[in-house]
Amino acid sequence: MERDVSIRLGVVGCGSVFWTPYMNLIERLRGQGRVEVTAVYDADPEKRRAAAERLDLTPELPDDLAVCTHPDVDLVMVLTSMPEHARLARAALEAGKHVLVEKPVATSLEDAEAVLAAAEAAPGHLLCAPHILLSPSYRAMHARVLAGEVGGLLSARARYGWAGPDWGRWYYEPGGGALFDLGIYNVTSLCGFFGPARRVTAMTGIAIPERVVQGERIRVQADDNAHVLIDFGDARYAVVTTGFTMQKYRSPCIELYGTHGVLQMLGDDWAPEGYELWRNDKAAWEVYPEADPTWPWTDGLRHLVECLETGVEPVTRPEHAYHALEIMLAAQAAGADGRAREITSDFPAPDLARLGEVGGHHRVHDPRSAS
Amino acid sequence: MERDVSIRLGVVGCGSVFWTPYMNLIERLRGQGRVEVTAVYDADPEKRRAAAERLDLTPELPDDLAVCTHPDVDLVMVLTSMPEHARLARAALEAGKHVLVEKPVATSLEDAEAVLAAAEAAPGHLLCAPHILLSPSYRAMHARVLAGEVGGLLSARARYGWAGPDWGRWYYEPGGGALFDLGIYNVTSLCGFFGPARRVTAMTGIAIPERVVQGERIRVQADDNAHVLIDFGDARYAVVTTGFTMQKYRSPCIELYGTHGVLQMLGDDWAPEGYELWRNDKAAWEVYPEADPTWPWTDGLRHLVECLETGVEPVTRPEHAYHALEIMLAAQAAGADGRAREITSDFPAPDLARLGEVGGHHRVHDPRSAS
Amino acid sequence: MERDVSIRLGVVGCGSVFWTPYMNLIERLRGQGRVEVTAVYDADPEKRRAAAERLDLTPELPDDLAVCTHPDVDLVMVLTSMPEHARLARAALEAGKHVLVEKPVATSLEDAEAVLAAAEAAPGHLLCAPHILLSPSYRAMHARVLAGEVGGLLSARARYGWAGPDWGRWYYEPGGGALFDLGIYNVTSLCGFFGPARRVTAMTGIAIPERVVQGERIRVQADDNAHVLIDFGDARYAVVTTGFTMQKYRSPCIELYGTHGVLQMLGDDWAPEGYELWRNDKAAWEVYPEADPTWPWTDGLRHLVECLETGVEPVTRPEHAYHALEIMLAAQAAGADGRAREITSDFPAPDLARLGEVGGHHRVHDPRSAS
Amino acid sequence: MERDVSIRLGVVGCGSVFWTPYMNLIERLRGQGRVEVTAVYDADPEKRRAAAERLDLTPELPDDLAVCTHPDVDLVMVLTSMPEHARLARAALEAGKHVLVEKPVATSLEDAEAVLAAAEAAPGHLLCAPHILLSPSYRAMHARVLAGEVGGLLSARARYGWAGPDWGRWYYEPGGGALFDLGIYNVTSLCGFFGPARRVTAMTGIAIPERVVQGERIRVQADDNAHVLIDFGDARYAVVTTGFTMQKYRSPCIELYGTHGVLQMLGDDWAPEGYELWRNDKAAWEVYPEADPTWPWTDGLRHLVECLETGVEPVTRPEHAYHALEIMLAAQAAGADGRAREITSDFPAPDLARLGEVGGHHRVHDPRSAS
Repeated sequence: MERDVSIRLGVVGCGSVFWTPYMNLIERLRGQGRVEVTAVYDADPEKRRAAAERLDLTPELPDDLAVCTHPDVDLVMVLTSMPEHARLARAALEAGKHVLVEKPVATSLEDAEAVLAAAEAAPGHLLCAPHILLSPSYRAMHARVLAGEVGGLLSARARYGWAGPDWGRWYYEPGGGALFDLGIYNVTSLCGFFGPARRVTAMTGIAIPERVVQGERIRVQADDNAHVLIDFGDARYAVVTTGFTMQKYRSPCIELYGTHGVLQMLGDDWAPEGYELWRNDKAAWEVYPEADPTWPWTDGLRHLVECLETGVEPVTRPEHAYHALEIMLAAQAAGADGRAREITSDFPAPDLARLGEVGGHHRVHDPRSAS
Repeated sequence: MERDVSIRLGVVGCGSVFWTPYMNLIERLRGQGRVEVTAVYDADPEKRRAAAERLDLTPELPDDLAVCTHPDVDLVMVLTSMPEHARLARAALEAGKHVLVEKPVATSLEDAEAVLAAAEAAPGHLLCAPHILLSPSYRAMHARVLAGEVGGLLSARARYGWAGPDWGRWYYEPGGGALFDLGIYNVTSLCGFFGPARRVTAMTGIAIPERVVQGERIRVQADDNAHVLIDFGDARYAVVTTGFTMQKYRSPCIELYGTHGVLQMLGDDWAPEGYELWRNDKAAWEVYPEADPTWPWTDGLRHLVECLETGVEPVTRPEHAYHALEIMLAAQAAGADGRAREITSDFPAPDLARLGEVGGHHRVHDPRSAS
Repeated sequence: MERDVSIRLGVVGCGSVFWTPYMNLIERLRGQGRVEVTAVYDADPEKRRAAAERLDLTPELPDDLAVCTHPDVDLVMVLTSMPEHARLARAALEAGKHVLVEKPVATSLEDAEAVLAAAEAAPGHLLCAPHILLSPSYRAMHARVLAGEVGGLLSARARYGWAGPDWGRWYYEPGGGALFDLGIYNVTSLCGFFGPARRVTAMTGIAIPERVVQGERIRVQADDNAHVLIDFGDARYAVVTTGFTMQKYRSPCIELYGTHGVLQMLGDDWAPEGYELWRNDKAAWEVYPEADPTWPWTDGLRHLVECLETGVEPVTRPEHAYHALEIMLAAQAAGADGRAREITSDFPAPDLARLGEVGGHHRVHDPRSAS
Repeated sequence: MERDVSIRLGVVGCGSVFWTPYMNLIERLRGQGRVEVTAVYDADPEKRRAAAERLDLTPELPDDLAVCTHPDVDLVMVLTSMPEHARLARAALEAGKHVLVEKPVATSLEDAEAVLAAAEAAPGHLLCAPHILLSPSYRAMHARVLAGEVGGLLSARARYGWAGPDWGRWYYEPGGGALFDLGIYNVTSLCGFFGPARRVTAMTGIAIPERVVQGERIRVQADDNAHVLIDFGDARYAVVTTGFTMQKYRSPCIELYGTHGVLQMLGDDWAPEGYELWRNDKAAWEVYPEADPTWPWTDGLRHLVECLETGVEPVTRPEHAYHALEIMLAAQAAGADGRAREITSDFPAPDLARLGEVGGHHRVHDPRSAS
């Protein structure tokens, strides 16, 4: 795809999510002449300066909105702390920009609704993280589910957790917690396979009351441990297990139990290591190695750029992110009082088939040296 | 252990649980001169006759109580359908017998209470299935948890399900269902590791409304799909996933997440295939092969016989079975209305250490030919 | 298959191979009314008496030949020490009996030739251990190789070893050693897949010069460590790794590399735990669980009995055993002087397809309780 | 490590080994200010120009020797085709340069001897690929072998093969072949664990006589299939299985069988994925995840640069490479006539402990985003 002009990126928020993960991908796209970064901003002057220096930009923007409305920016990447997501995404959309916003799109349903309404009214695309539906393993599994290879889905388990960060106090303060930091991945993945949820309940709480973060002992004030039950209708259920309470695992990250078989993803849904398929009529586990072991969880940026280049809509839809947010908030509420919550929002089925078929890779010999 | 006289068994219920699983073990114990079967009964005259013939007994007992009170019986095995368990166990205890009762000990808390009260008042031992705490893998894991090798337990997952029987309509009729047939194993296992539960919620339902059983299409009337969340206090949670909705799996049956490591059982808790241990300070998965790949889930009988031979109490306690029953009933209730239930009963920690240490087995070369 | 009369077995050699492994199978066949044991002999009077007592037989046969020529015997099982195999098999065949002989059929090519000639001339069937071609996993893999599912076989690895017995000094004395005790399994397996070998070389030696056997320190005088290279013609090679020098393993027992895929057996070829198949055009590992986890390596007896019942020839042929012997002897010679040896004998392709298709087993739920 | 001046690299040979694998590492080292590239040459003018352009260099060097003797070069990287290795390495050493030479250091023992003699006489360091002893998994396993954790090594298997390149005809022409392209890795690895070999035999040949390379059907003229047996003295043996005849594998790349345990490397020795350890006294498999999943097989360059920065000798010694070459040539000879060859050269034990301890990594959460 030859292009005369590359897409101009504006970045708001230059923390750890920007530095290495997104930066790696930006560099690769820049090397291909597909993007350039024209504006950056971070509330922290030091981070602001570091990013500007790295990108050969002037750091002298007055505030975050200056990126969102910058005349030399086509696509705004909202990578700030969670509470700012909705405001910035909305501002950028209203300024006519395309927007990639990190998860969650908002921290309340009202704010999320406002962002989606802005996207509806504006010319730009809105792409909400996580981008996990784009991974080759997810897409291959999704195609198999759609094709009925394991029959109708009846039950599922998903898990994503770890020991928890020993940096960043905000993870353990109100507004942080494992559910929004980790659980949202599995929730997004499962809804992509099952369709919209109908009901949610959960157990959530603080299992490790004190931690050492950045060398200091702190009191944990946000839930670090959670199990979420999701009802997808017709007595089809799934559970998401998450927490800063899991030192390690050695189990599939997603297990989908269908009427005629089982599909499970290895690794994590944001870093898949292939998948496994059981079909009763084959009576064998088929183990599919990861088609792209270097697939980055920032891949939504590449997807959005490609959509802009080719003039099509992104396959991941803002309604999916809204729905996941409703589930997360319902899980928090149910975790507080032990009562299941109905889920009312909906989202269109993701059209992953449009991305093409996921290939095998038996001749790739040295993936670590891939350019 | 030389004994002058072997223990005399009376069997009530000669269905599929009696034929092969318990019968295999009875034969082995009989070969060692430790037991003999002196009375059998089944409501079905044909099954009654088949069992009597196989055991060289006269089939002519008038009813099930005749086994429970039989003068030539020391130990009554209650292997009937679930609704009869409590009545028969109680009758046998009151007749001064030792009792092994299949799960569940009763189908209501009132009945269970009555059985436990009878055991309390009577001289005989009461041993309630499942016997899964006796497996070498369970015992080895339990010892490691007690020794603090993974730190304090914070979170857990367990699963046991399969495609479901294509025989026996009662599995799918009211009083049947996956929760009591399958879920009780995981619930019993988890409580053995965590201690008493404090709260329960669940999602349960009928995911496959019609099935073919014994060649006939039937309507399913009992829940075949369930996820149960258990709160063990202090924000420590576990989930049990079960159902006649799982065609196959390839994941640990139990995952225990502690503050400093992870322990997980392979296979099923009623048929373990070893276990795995992660400790942060070792930074390796230690994979322990099954110490006894032929361990039978009927092993409670051997244990009870040994306790009688040596004059000690069984390590698995009726209060544990009562507690599991309270959890199961609470899960059913929560599944119906979406509201978590408090759990009030308690049980003493199982003293599995008394059974001795579980050995390794690297020199066993041909386990299939083991006598 | 109803039969008026069961097949009458005579057993020569009542050591560890007879006790549990073959005895288990004999009991099962006896329970089905298919065999009875009518004569036993062992050079050791105590073993002789124990076997006779267990089988309700008079122990008073004068010598081993008395079993081979016994008028009430249809099928002679030669389970003695290796040097006696050829003499006894031949005597039994010449007496008109069917013969099952443990491996190796003889310890020299001359003796083996004489046994095969006797079988040719006599009416009885000769079945030579090992019986590993009969396992469900072997048969399934063999069918796939024949069907060309991995293309033409080009290369292979096989391994079978362990720490070595701490009983039985003869394993470590001249005439013993790892090659004939262990290596013969892999050699037999590989030839079954590739067809006749054309050339052999090897490294063999004594890696652990002293051992404790039955509590006593002994000097090892037979090779306990060996790698055998086999040339199957057209630059297609395989290696067999064996020894009393392998404490444990965790790798496939057989790996077959074809032009378009790979097939590998899990477990051991005498105790398979399923198999794995890679096909380039599927780009997935297909993992086939063991169809019969209780398959016994003594299964040749059942096969021979079935052949007698149905009037057909056994599918495992004496020429295959002869060929394996030639390879083993060539490996010993090459191990001594470092020079490859040509292999001249041949054997017909085993017609395993005649045994029918190997089924899957996804509905087997409790294999340990199988009757 | 602060340095005033970075090390100046000269590159001879700008083929596929230079482009991505070494180039990736050079860029990383350049980013750290540790190296710069000051001279490049390739016999092919187009490759020469591409490399020069990428590195902002003038392409106008007259020949390969001009790099070896270039006044602005400290370290010469010899990445040409195999026959040129010895000549160029020697010229660079004699010009006072440090040298990194790709495998094999030479194609005859005479040439290799000359290179080693030049290194001996000259001030520069000579580092010969492969660099696999430097990987974290190799080092961790090596330390365990030295510490006697599996007892004395008795037997081993190693494998490295694949479907073979469908580019580059030279792989299949005289001077190419699987042994030198692939087998040398396993040979180098095994000698690092066992010490010097004493004897070698092999089977080698052309198993796939015709192939399609770069769209054209060619006749294969170099051995594409090989098994090599190595005798490490005292009846301790290993086998290396290699070939362009292996479509895929799923087995450890190296298995080391000791008197008291087993050690095995997962993945490939040039791209390890952790290792497994069995110790009889622990009776468990300990599975160590890869400490650095991004470790590149070009790591020798980083090591040599570090040695120059800190003024110490490289831990991988030229004598080791010479010894591996003697084994490879002996394997070729034995493959041709079926006769084992004595090995006479020696090499000092690699002092990998000097590189420090290999750490665990249980807190690494997102290795794909590592900078």
